[in-house]
Formats: sequence, C-alpha cells, structure tokens
Amino acid sequence: MTAAAGTRRAVVLLSGGLDSATCLALARDAGFACHALSVDYGQRHDAELAAARRVATALGAVRHLVVDVDLRPVGGSALTDPAVAVPETPGEGIPPTYVPARNTLLLSLALGWAEVLGARHIYTGVNAVDYSGYPDCRPEFIQAFEAAANLGTRAGVEGDGFTIATPLIHLPKHEIIRLGRGLGVDYGLTVSCYQADDAGRACGRCDACRLRAAGFSRAGGPDPTRYQA
Amino acid sequence: MTAAAGTRRAVVLLSGGLDSATCLALARDAGFACHALSVDYGQRHDAELAAARRVATALGAVRHLVVDVDLRPVGGSALTDPAVAVPETPGEGIPPTYVPARNTLLLSLALGWAEVLGARHIYTGVNAVDYSGYPDCRPEFIQAFEAAANLGTRAGVEGDGFTIATPLIHLPKHEIIRLGRGLGVDYGLTVSCYQADDAGRACGRCDACRLRAAGFSRAGGPDPTRYQA
Repeated sequence: MTAAAGTRRAVVLLSGGLDSATCLALARDAGFACHALSVDYGQRHDAELAAARRVATALGAVRHLVVDVDLRPVGGSALTDPAVAVPETPGEGIPPTYVPARNTLLLSLALGWAEVLGARHIYTGVNAVDYSGYPDCRPEFIQAFEAAANLGTRAGVEGDGFTIATPLIHLPKHEIIRLGRGLGVDYGLTVSCYQADDAGRACGRCDACRLRAAGFSRAGGPDPTRYQA
Repeated sequence: MTAAAGTRRAVVLLSGGLDSATCLALARDAGFACHALSVDYGQRHDAELAAARRVATALGAVRHLVVDVDLRPVGGSALTDPAVAVPETPGEGIPPTYVPARNTLLLSLALGWAEVLGARHIYTGVNAVDYSGYPDCRPEFIQAFEAAANLGTRAGVEGDGFTIATPLIHLPKHEIIRLGRGLGVDYGLTVSCYQADDAGRACGRCDACRLRAAGFSRAGGPDPTRYQA
C-alpha cells in the first residue's frame, strides 16, 4: 500500500506485541500513512520482530524499517543479558525486564526518522495502567520527551513540532483488546511473551504473558495466543 | 586504568573530535572514572571512531564502548547519506550535515549505559557558540532532555537523578583549545573533519574544518591538524 498524495505520515513504534499492533491500527484509522519502526536491540525475544513484520503487513504499513542497535554490551536487563533471568512470578517494584532508557532510545530513533519523512506524529503503545512498573511508560515522561524533541530538532525549531501520540496510555489491557478487535487487529499475529520460542509460542509465565492472558480473559471472546507445550 | 573503589563514574560521549576530547579531559579532571561512549551510526567519517579510540586511551578512560546504530536506512543527512554532499562553503541556517535527532539518540544511549553503570553524570561536548546551527546543541534542549531522563529511568524515579554536563556549551572554540591544552589533551589525536580520509587527514574545507582552524588560529600556538594533500 502506498500513501496517497497529501496523506499525513506517522511513525509508529512496532514491537510486535499486542499494544503496538493496536497502536498501528489506531494510527491507520486516524488516516495516517503509517511508517512502522521496529528496533532490534538484542532482545532475547527475536520472535517479537518476526511478529512485527507480520503485523506491519497485515495492517497496511507503508513501510517497515528495522533498525539494529546492539544493547547487549550495555546489558543491565533480563531482556538483553542472558545472565539475568526473566521473572516468572509477580514481584514488587521495577522488574529485571526493565531496559534502561529503552523508550528514550526508541523514541529518539522514531524522532529522527519522522523528521526525515516529514512526519509530525509518532505513535507509541506505552501503557501506564496494566504496565510492569516501567518509568518510561508514564505520561510525565512522554510529555517531557516531547518537549525535548521539539527543542532538539529542525522541525521543532522551525515551529512545526512533533506530537508523541500515546492512545493506549490510560487503557486497561482488556479495553485495548476490544478496541483492536473493532479495528480488525489479528492478535494471533502478535507476540507479547518475554521468552517466546522461535515459533513465537509464549511461555505463559512471564509478566507479559500474565498481563496478556488476564486481558483476554476480561475482554471475553477467544484468546489466540499460542503457548509452548 | 581502573577505577578506585568509591570513585564516581561518568559516561562521556566521545566522537573523536576536538570538543569531546576536551570534555573527556574535563571529566577526568573533575575526578570521575570515565566510561567513554562512541556511536557508530554509519557516519561517513569513520576516521572519527579511530580517533575516539586513540583519545580514550590517551586520556585514561576506564572503558571505551562503541555502540553500532545504523542510521543509513534513515538517511536525511550529508553525514549518513552518500547522495547528500557535505558543504564546503559557509551557508545559512541548519546545514545538510545536521543528523535528525542525533544528540537525542546519543544521549539516550549514554543514559542507558549510565544507569547500568551506576553513573549519574553524562558529559557531552555540545557547543552553542561556534556551532553549526544544530538545534540539539542548545542549552534549552539539554535541559529538556535531562528532565525527560529523570522521569524515564529507574534512577530518576528513585530520586537519585542524572546530570547532563555540558562544560563547553558556552565556550568559543579557541577557549576550548586553551582549556584542553592545559589539561594535556593532544589535539593531534583528534579528527573534526566531516570528510576525513581513512588516515584521519582533514579536508580543510567543510564547516568543521573551518571552525577548528579558526579556533587554533585564535588560540595561538601550534595547530596539529593533518590535512589531505
């Protein structure tokens, strides 16, 4: 699918999970020509990137760009350091799956691409309700990043600034699922699990699996998640 | 060189140019165990990264990490897109060497590494005086990024926030050079040119070369820059 002349462009951060797929569907529904951006930062869950490719195609992204940033030498997270285990029981506070400054990095990459494309909207599926305690999913962070983006770019300086759109930030998981279903999202294409296998099958035990399963349970209707044996 | 127990750590963004080398010397002089961070973002001037390695060693960095982020598919700059020429005469406004959201990206990588290391100071050699018109070198951007950093990280949320140190931001180039000389910086190791050759020899014509040469001229004393024939 290509953008019609004059169509407004948006960059949509697409992890391949449930939230970002919904976000892409919302951006498309708002009339944007969607440029999906995924980042391979050395996360354990490669299956997410395969899911991102499927979702970008299914939801008609104009383009899907995967940028490689190897955060493994930086470490500090269960998602990038094999020596740190992914927790399989609920815990207190910020969990070991926290990747330091991840959303700052993802948004900075989206910002650079948006500026090159002439896009002024960046969509991210961050969520501050059913979230895992990540500080960079909170509205106050997003607002502060948007302010920095508009001071540190040509488009910001020249008066035509950026909007960081976070349409899911205040929604519980089951409402996100209902919203996405209404927009035709096939959640069977998405992978949320922190330790999915190569085929994209979920562990059923990590935080991301627990939040997702509870969301489908409360939303009613089928849960298309495929689990490991 | 290794950090003594209890020594405070800093992450220092190190491009291999004159300013960032001076910045590293200043951070060391302030008593920090310096963790130098360079980013290979597909810039044309590979010679800068070789210079960064030499400078990190010469100025006693505890560690030098090079993170790869390939911005070439993003494009939009003379530094990452071979189809865009580096200007060789002074121009108006923000020049084509502007890399969209570059400092946002560099600072986000530094932020993540700093959080993992337990460092709370990030040094960057941005300069708003003899600069090339880049919006992300201005104090208002740095302040806004610092605010976002302290809302989007564990260390920020838990009350022990980050400082983005910009000791050169208000200094003209010749004062930076005098300052660095006083701290023992060997500017012969650094490369500022946007189109240096593989041996690190400067073109003498780009904005970066012109600013550097004018700085050495005004600072007095020798200019160790090596030029192409």
